Amino acid sequence: MDIIQYINENAVLIDNHLEQRLHFSEAPARLVEALRYGVIGGGKKIRASLCLATGEAFGVKREDLLSLAGGIEMIHSFSLVHDDLPEMDNDDYRRGKFSLHKAFGGAMGILAGDALLVEGFRFFLSDSYFCRLVGNSKLVQILNILLDALSVEGMVGGQVLDIDLEGIEVDEEQVMNIYRMKTARFIQAPILCGAIVGGAKKSELQDLERFGLLAGECFQIKDDLLDVTQPSEVLGKTAGKDLQQEKATLVKIHGIHGTQEIMENLFQEAETILNQADRSFSLLRELAHFIITRHH
Amino acid sequence: MDIIQYINENAVLIDNHLEQRLHFSEAPARLVEALRYGVIGGGKKIRASLCLATGEAFGVKREDLLSLAGGIEMIHSFSLVHDDLPEMDNDDYRRGKFSLHKAFGGAMGILAGDALLVEGFRFFLSDSYFCRLVGNSKLVQILNILLDALSVEGMVGGQVLDIDLEGIEVDEEQVMNIYRMKTARFIQAPILCGAIVGGAKKSELQDLERFGLLAGECFQIKDDLLDVTQPSEVLGKTAGKDLQQEKATLVKIHGIHGTQEIMENLFQEAETILNQADRSFSLLRELAHFIITRHH
Repeated sequence: MDIIQYINENAVLIDNHLEQRLHFSEAPARLVEALRYGVIGGGKKIRASLCLATGEAFGVKREDLLSLAGGIEMIHSFSLVHDDLPEMDNDDYRRGKFSLHKAFGGAMGILAGDALLVEGFRFFLSDSYFCRLVGNSKLVQILNILLDALSVEGMVGGQVLDIDLEGIEVDEEQVMNIYRMKTARFIQAPILCGAIVGGAKKSELQDLERFGLLAGECFQIKDDLLDVTQPSEVLGKTAGKDLQQEKATLVKIHGIHGTQEIMENLFQEAETILNQADRSFSLLRELAHFIITRHH
Repeated sequence: MDIIQYINENAVLIDNHLEQRLHFSEAPARLVEALRYGVIGGGKKIRASLCLATGEAFGVKREDLLSLAGGIEMIHSFSLVHDDLPEMDNDDYRRGKFSLHKAFGGAMGILAGDALLVEGFRFFLSDSYFCRLVGNSKLVQILNILLDALSVEGMVGGQVLDIDLEGIEVDEEQVMNIYRMKTARFIQAPILCGAIVGGAKKSELQDLERFGLLAGECFQIKDDLLDVTQPSEVLGKTAGKDLQQEKATLVKIHGIHGTQEIMENLFQEAETILNQADRSFSLLRELAHFIITRHH
């Protein structure tokens, strides 16, 4: 299957699943509306695809992973919603529409963000079929992986560094450290979650851990390249923001061409890991290739 | 033991435990500082005491519950930090010092809040002794209880209602619904968590569920009474805010005397549940009594 088709198909599956299950009888209607606005529709849902593709490589049925992958997309959306807030990146557009706080107000930007994080975990924890399928031991492993990726040594820590180092002279190592923390850990996490559901061996998890981090680095580097090469209409969010906010990026240090080269080398390293594995990870490899070749 | 002494002793135990364990080698120093500022010192840590007292009633050693109770206080602090943000209640003071965003800036108010939530869960999940002690099945139960209490049908939903109903004519039922969602669920949760660690039977959990909700309602009613009867210096936060923000409170509907009466009736109902239990819950009863008699 063509990888673009696979991604689009997954995005529809996830959106339908979210659409169907994100209802709450006792919650304020406006909050539920904001929650759904923040995660359903728009976005490539690449983290969901990474989770599904990895699970499939281990023989897990795609439909059995929808609540986990959907929950992961909700948790990812939490980070976008808070990142767009005025105190943070102050962005009015996301996924081709108003960012959540712009559409629902600042208080809702904070609270719906919090809700996406909490409800993201509840999304798969409340799926009793999924919980029985994986069992409590793997469930705790999955929760740990996601929480570690979000932690002060992961995404939240990376966001702080990203802001702290605005306008400051930084070297490649510092930039790569930010990329790993703020982005790569939460690209790696859905891959590891899919593998755990599939019963991956320890050595396989270690390989996927390295692969996931490299793919995640590629993802952030490509994001930064797109920020300087694509217009806002194509990105669905404000382009050229990194330069404007004097973000610490590889592009700032190495220029477009040099950055592209670094990314391709990282991709090759990632690809080699999968090529040397006993199992076929063709979808996962193609997803990583899509990450570095995408146009938005 | 005198209950004030018990609470103070627990607060010191929890603070010391947080002090000792809240270090991260790979996290930005400023974020770790903000995280510690948000939870260590100040505050009565009443949720921790509720968790410890319940656990003790079931024969669990207090020191075995410190990472769970500490994590619960971190998660509670997350809600305070976000609640104080300019978009929300816009409060400059908390626990007798500057609120977190006032001391560390708005971006950190959002991110350190997020971090307190994530790290709150990690605080007990990363304690391998605790995790072995309770086992994966109970661990998943505890995570579900905490996440449910925080959910759009719990605390976050309650916060939205609390803001949405500012300045609007509301009846007692609506007010009590807000109290249950935004406050009582997360007073109930630490009690249930302590009981689960202690191996409570289903019927005991049901009793404590009812008791916890009633105690939580009392807690919020008392908070609203204190808001109109105590000065800022005693509260450690801005007094008189409910009136100023036209919050939906019982005091607004029934006045101070009528509200006090409602609270005392709820307390008696809560007390009766404990009195009829087979097990002795003396510390828990005294904590509930402290909740309605405290001066700040």
